[in-house]
Amino acid sequence: MLHVDRGRFGADFEELAAIGRTPAGGVHRPALEDAHLEARAWFLDRGRAAGLETRVDAAGNHSALLPARAAGSRTLLLGSHLDSVADGGRYDGALGVLAALEVLRTVQEAKLDLPVALEAIDFTDEEGSLVGLLGSRALAGTLTPEMLASPRGGRAAFVAGLERAGLAESRLASARRDPATLAGYLELHIEQGPVLERGGAEIGVVTAIAGSRSFRLSFTGEAAHAGTTPMDARRDAGLAAARFAAAAHDLVVAEHPGCVATVGRIDLEPGFFNVVPGRARVALEFRAATAVELDPLEAELLVLARAQGLPVEVEAVGSWEPCALDASVRAAITDAAEALSLRAAELPSWAGHDAEALAAITRSGMIFVPSRGGVSHSPSEHTDWDDCVRGADVLLGAALRLAAGAPPGP
Amino acid sequence: MLHVDRGRFGADFEELAAIGRTPAGGVHRPALEDAHLEARAWFLDRGRAAGLETRVDAAGNHSALLPARAAGSRTLLLGSHLDSVADGGRYDGALGVLAALEVLRTVQEAKLDLPVALEAIDFTDEEGSLVGLLGSRALAGTLTPEMLASPRGGRAAFVAGLERAGLAESRLASARRDPATLAGYLELHIEQGPVLERGGAEIGVVTAIAGSRSFRLSFTGEAAHAGTTPMDARRDAGLAAARFAAAAHDLVVAEHPGCVATVGRIDLEPGFFNVVPGRARVALEFRAATAVELDPLEAELLVLARAQGLPVEVEAVGSWEPCALDASVRAAITDAAEALSLRAAELPSWAGHDAEALAAITRSGMIFVPSRGGVSHSPSEHTDWDDCVRGADVLLGAALRLAAGAPPGP
Repeated sequence: MLHVDRGRFGADFEELAAIGRTPAGGVHRPALEDAHLEARAWFLDRGRAAGLETRVDAAGNHSALLPARAAGSRTLLLGSHLDSVADGGRYDGALGVLAALEVLRTVQEAKLDLPVALEAIDFTDEEGSLVGLLGSRALAGTLTPEMLASPRGGRAAFVAGLERAGLAESRLASARRDPATLAGYLELHIEQGPVLERGGAEIGVVTAIAGSRSFRLSFTGEAAHAGTTPMDARRDAGLAAARFAAAAHDLVVAEHPGCVATVGRIDLEPGFFNVVPGRARVALEFRAATAVELDPLEAELLVLARAQGLPVEVEAVGSWEPCALDASVRAAITDAAEALSLRAAELPSWAGHDAEALAAITRSGMIFVPSRGGVSHSPSEHTDWDDCVRGADVLLGAALRLAAGAPPGP
Repeated sequence: MLHVDRGRFGADFEELAAIGRTPAGGVHRPALEDAHLEARAWFLDRGRAAGLETRVDAAGNHSALLPARAAGSRTLLLGSHLDSVADGGRYDGALGVLAALEVLRTVQEAKLDLPVALEAIDFTDEEGSLVGLLGSRALAGTLTPEMLASPRGGRAAFVAGLERAGLAESRLASARRDPATLAGYLELHIEQGPVLERGGAEIGVVTAIAGSRSFRLSFTGEAAHAGTTPMDARRDAGLAAARFAAAAHDLVVAEHPGCVATVGRIDLEPGFFNVVPGRARVALEFRAATAVELDPLEAELLVLARAQGLPVEVEAVGSWEPCALDASVRAAITDAAEALSLRAAELPSWAGHDAEALAAITRSGMIFVPSRGGVSHSPSEHTDWDDCVRGADVLLGAALRLAAGAPPGP
């Protein structure tokens, strides 16, 4: 059975982790900042060194390509991203891009004659330092003017990043690919959660990418003197916010097992020791693996917010719909893991990924490997190297299965 | 029976309210800022215009004086403060200073021959824009180097304020008065709470100034991905803070009636929608009218903080001990109100006042008049003028009673 080259793969991993390395041992490579651009240039160098073709599209997506023998064949995309969150870890994204490159080199060395081209692709700005899924959405044709008009990271940082990368905002959308040219998308990624580790599984077969919605809740009470205002005369917006946060947690645990809800921020105004808060702003986010779960979760949380005895304004600030991943891709991953005698488990992804954008135009799937302690977006993010290699081997096996079953080119 | 001059008192009130007037109809006279200094200069002018002596001491306290006929007589202080909180109301402090001035004028016009001197005094920085009770503590000899080293308002603002007022930090303490020269202290003030209004009382006889303690509580959990971290794997510092805030409220209502507790601020870190908070800082303040109530309240609140399942650091940031006011002064106020056929009620003050500092060196007491809706520290702060005049008449009556019963001079 074909395997990736553990040593070569590992050496690449260490070289890449040195780019943007932080004192704590993680990496700092926000999208289109210097360290990120350096990592992308290094990736193309590694592709060229392996005799692969390289390509940078209008959205800045960087690719190494192994063409099929037959002209006009479809392309099977294998990828992830080289950008990181601020002060992030070494595995998130980087592992998938390097595994994809390693798969191409392995297939090339084995002189396999596949009916599809293979493309190892590094998508632009997966983490959303600027826009979020910028490269994969551009490729899928789902980038909207609204996303560019008010990017998460602010317009100034976005414009500066494009300029550093030599990209033109007006041309981003032309990175769109014709779905008829694609044979599918596969991504290896760390789980970023504790489920595989807890269950003793080596490989995760991702069933869906959970949807998330976020709301800003503003409770309006009445600011008052913290000494002279008796408890029964108060309209304490902070108390309403606190009761809501506790109740939201309890609701999800009791009534929506498997879902998550988070209050990440509470701002009380005026915010002094000696003033009863007159206003409280709460940042609420919740996620579910399916729309069937997400809609009632939203409804119940908003009922809870309105049950705290004070007027509350509800502002929707973000929505990512749940995305089921392709059954044939899941089967290919499961088969590949079984052939390697690995313990595989199905699970949803609770974080967003480029695979979600790709699912809009081609069959899309993801392979997870365990994250130690479930830690991610942190310098202490870690996956045992054995698990990384197992993941790359499953990526290889699943890619070969999908290549074999791919429809003919357009 | 002697009464103050309602019209003259009212005309003064309107003139003073024009100094630092805000568009919303309140006043903005933070201590030692220009509007405050202008108000103090105006006050001395009014005293001089009435033929009273005037005095400014080393702590900037401004006084108008009506000497006793006998040399070496004690002085009965009547006062309050002309500074306001930022964007405050017209009554807080100003009412008491003007009523004191009006009492001196009334006594002078009636040519009463009192065995004590009367001094209408405007204390520096009662509200604590800079230090808090700066003038009254200096007069009482209880100002400490620590208070001046780290003033609430910051060193820079404090130093600039002293310079604007022509005061020397090194000389502030020399404003100290010998207790043997004093016959007592009386202050008329708005209640700043709803108790008198709710009870239909016209005059409040203040029994004590409540003590307050404030703590900064820091809960330490673990910052984690809000998607990939299951609810049962979280150590959510924000949840601990929210549960504490709600439980603290419920504890006080159920177990400590008459006391108050406030969470005025909650800071969650890192503070994003999509990150479970790893740290939560809570601003907690609570008050009780007596030490017998304050100590167990503190103990129970801190037990509650430590019962939230996460490590918590407890930092004491402020402490004002409860201060019982003098029984003979309370009796004089009650007698004066009865003589005027006014409905009086005893109650503690839930806000701090200069009377607390004065209680350290002389018999000290306070008269409250109702605050509409209990509102204070706001442009909408209001007390009916009838109530203000009643309060000034009670101040006059109580002062005459205390003067009559004062011990001979030193």
